Amino acid sequence: MSEIRISLQTCRPAADIAAAVRSGASHAIEQVESARSRIDVNEQQIGAWQHLDWQLADKQAQRAELGALAGVPVGVKDIIDTFDQPSENGTAADRGRIPPSDATAVARLRQAGAIILGKTVTTECACGASRGTRNPHNLQHTPGGSSSGSAAAVAAGMVPLALGTQTAGSVIRPAAFCGVWGMMPSLGTIPCTGSLKLSETLDHIGVFANTAEDLALGIDVMSGEDGNDPIAAGLASIRLAAALTQPLAPPRLAFLRGPTWSEVEPGCAAQYEKLAQDLAAEPLDMGADFADIVDAHQTVMFAEIAHNMWPLYERAGAMLSQMMRARLVKGRAIGAADYLRMRARIFAMRMAFNDVMGDFDAAITAPAPGEAPLGLESTGSRLLTLAWTTLGVPAVNVPGMTGPGGLPIGVQVVGRRGDDAQVLRAAAWIGQHLADA
Amino acid sequence: MSEIRISLQTCRPAADIAAAVRSGASHAIEQVESARSRIDVNEQQIGAWQHLDWQLADKQAQRAELGALAGVPVGVKDIIDTFDQPSENGTAADRGRIPPSDATAVARLRQAGAIILGKTVTTECACGASRGTRNPHNLQHTPGGSSSGSAAAVAAGMVPLALGTQTAGSVIRPAAFCGVWGMMPSLGTIPCTGSLKLSETLDHIGVFANTAEDLALGIDVMSGEDGNDPIAAGLASIRLAAALTQPLAPPRLAFLRGPTWSEVEPGCAAQYEKLAQDLAAEPLDMGADFADIVDAHQTVMFAEIAHNMWPLYERAGAMLSQMMRARLVKGRAIGAADYLRMRARIFAMRMAFNDVMGDFDAAITAPAPGEAPLGLESTGSRLLTLAWTTLGVPAVNVPGMTGPGGLPIGVQVVGRRGDDAQVLRAAAWIGQHLADA
Repeated sequence: MSEIRISLQTCRPAADIAAAVRSGASHAIEQVESARSRIDVNEQQIGAWQHLDWQLADKQAQRAELGALAGVPVGVKDIIDTFDQPSENGTAADRGRIPPSDATAVARLRQAGAIILGKTVTTECACGASRGTRNPHNLQHTPGGSSSGSAAAVAAGMVPLALGTQTAGSVIRPAAFCGVWGMMPSLGTIPCTGSLKLSETLDHIGVFANTAEDLALGIDVMSGEDGNDPIAAGLASIRLAAALTQPLAPPRLAFLRGPTWSEVEPGCAAQYEKLAQDLAAEPLDMGADFADIVDAHQTVMFAEIAHNMWPLYERAGAMLSQMMRARLVKGRAIGAADYLRMRARIFAMRMAFNDVMGDFDAAITAPAPGEAPLGLESTGSRLLTLAWTTLGVPAVNVPGMTGPGGLPIGVQVVGRRGDDAQVLRAAAWIGQHLADA
Repeated sequence: MSEIRISLQTCRPAADIAAAVRSGASHAIEQVESARSRIDVNEQQIGAWQHLDWQLADKQAQRAELGALAGVPVGVKDIIDTFDQPSENGTAADRGRIPPSDATAVARLRQAGAIILGKTVTTECACGASRGTRNPHNLQHTPGGSSSGSAAAVAAGMVPLALGTQTAGSVIRPAAFCGVWGMMPSLGTIPCTGSLKLSETLDHIGVFANTAEDLALGIDVMSGEDGNDPIAAGLASIRLAAALTQPLAPPRLAFLRGPTWSEVEPGCAAQYEKLAQDLAAEPLDMGADFADIVDAHQTVMFAEIAHNMWPLYERAGAMLSQMMRARLVKGRAIGAADYLRMRARIFAMRMAFNDVMGDFDAAITAPAPGEAPLGLESTGSRLLTLAWTTLGVPAVNVPGMTGPGGLPIGVQVVGRRGDDAQVLRAAAWIGQHLADA
């Protein structure tokens, strides 16, 4: 038997919950109870959560009456620090680790009234072995990774909002596989302070939700420099939610097959070609400037991961998976000159991409080669997300399509770095189109 | 015969020249003529200049009537771009190269009324072979490097102000060997845009002059972010000249032997110990945190130089010296993990140094192991300047002492990053002390 289907729960959007809590129509404690009942239905089969503490959730709920996310239960990927809950980074080497303080993103969610309901399962250190979370749409399939638990929890209706991170494809890919909205905002939009550092050049924090509006709410409150993350320095907070309140209009869309389009499975490729026609998205060629973008990403990412993780390897190498150890050893073999050359290529490609986009508001492309692969061993190919992560541009997964095998596939919407509002508006418009179709 | 002494010229300070030109008491064209006559006396023996164009100087002088440096003739190290004069980087591979635009530092000097009199000799790409400039105090000795021509031109009284750069010791060391004032301001104070990039982590632009006031004038007009150099981003322009107009008072001084003190020649070390007593400078131990600072500097610098210079090596390797080729090949062998680890160590040491300085206003130390070595092959040891370059802290060479061999030695004054005004005030006070002694 290659599929096990379960009945998914429905969760009210974060925007509705917060409005009800702020007005007094609901109390945050009810929201915790409601989340608990939804989680209880499927958690044993899905395995989205690394840590849940209902007493602590109730305690948080007693004070959660105000703010853009008042009373909204949120799942936080377990590589993002929480001062009051274990933050184990998906490895036995950090079992029971409780960090001294919240990550910037978490502290800002709390300030906005959110309830940090628990920690969601990540693959090993967000760059190693998968850890058993199942795809809510078919338990035999991977939910994608590395933000496996956050994507699955939102897809199963457990929580309306969850945090992930993306250094290669760890937000957009699981969002696509799980059929939920996901957004990686422009590099630096959400400071990474307090999130396990993999690659300072490529790390992004992102969000999963069931609506575009909820992505906006979550990102808005976490955005803006924090005086600590140098990548976020000088970047003001953004206002995506306000941008979505303006009436949506058809965006001028490009169809960007991108440098790794040949990886897309033929059946899915045909669906994207058809969608591009329906949306009047004009084919756009990125040109030869980006031919080495996968190489550049891999060189810089593996060199930086090897650097950042080496202390863990030295402290607890025997507790790491063989896959992870092999990646670190491989990363340590990269030369400084190659690293610096490829990092310079990344900066040059980031500049060049603005010109590629010309007059287009946003571009559509595939978020993954196809549907979530069978099995839990691999979290799937990251090749369709690498380019946009490398460029540091905003990327949104719009759910609403189904692949040839009956599992969700998504549409990835990307744009210029800093054009997050325009990209999310285009994504919301595409979401309406898919819902109406 | 181990020495050839010549008679040095005297040049009015830049501050006096600018005041006279602004008031109409002198015309900038007179200043060009005066510089020409001083240069004519000794240039053939010293070899400080790579390029001089008297017609162009006169043309600039016709418009140089206003500004903090009105009519002041300035020498510019030949790795710093000038749109109207060759910028050959000290290598035959760039012979005749005229860049499309001025470096930020040069453009700002022009805006302040300075006359870019010519380009001064640099060692090969500021990191390779020396190129024959002689020490004005003894023609058989090196002037130091890599900013050889700028230091020698100021020492010989040719110009009151000249630009250098320091990635290891290229401002402070030649200033000490040539007996002139030199200052490397805090990392990022003067944007490096348009200066040959050796090492993005370590490159500084600095200044040579015959007075502390002239250092201040020059640095002030060049300082402040330019929207291009990321190291200068967020840094406002500074006002050293204003700080020097306040009456000088005895600073609270530390005597920082630093991690490479054992390199100082015994005779000179005794002079510094004596000076520390005279100035009531308290011995200060940097502790074990800085034990690997030389390693960290060398790893990061050689990896970044190899990266930045590799295109030159591929284009014109045969035109480079064997020394330079060997350095690039050595740099290419450094691993990315070592590079990243040592770069992280540098950032950690930069944070730690603020604590080391405690309540001290500034610290004195040696700028070099001793006097300028005999011969022109080597430009001398950089070991006494590496730590301060690595830390990105302000460093000033105060002239006024003479070593056991009769050549100048200097006092290096350093302080916290950003405390440039305090460090320069301390240096000026020490300069008065040496003059009075």
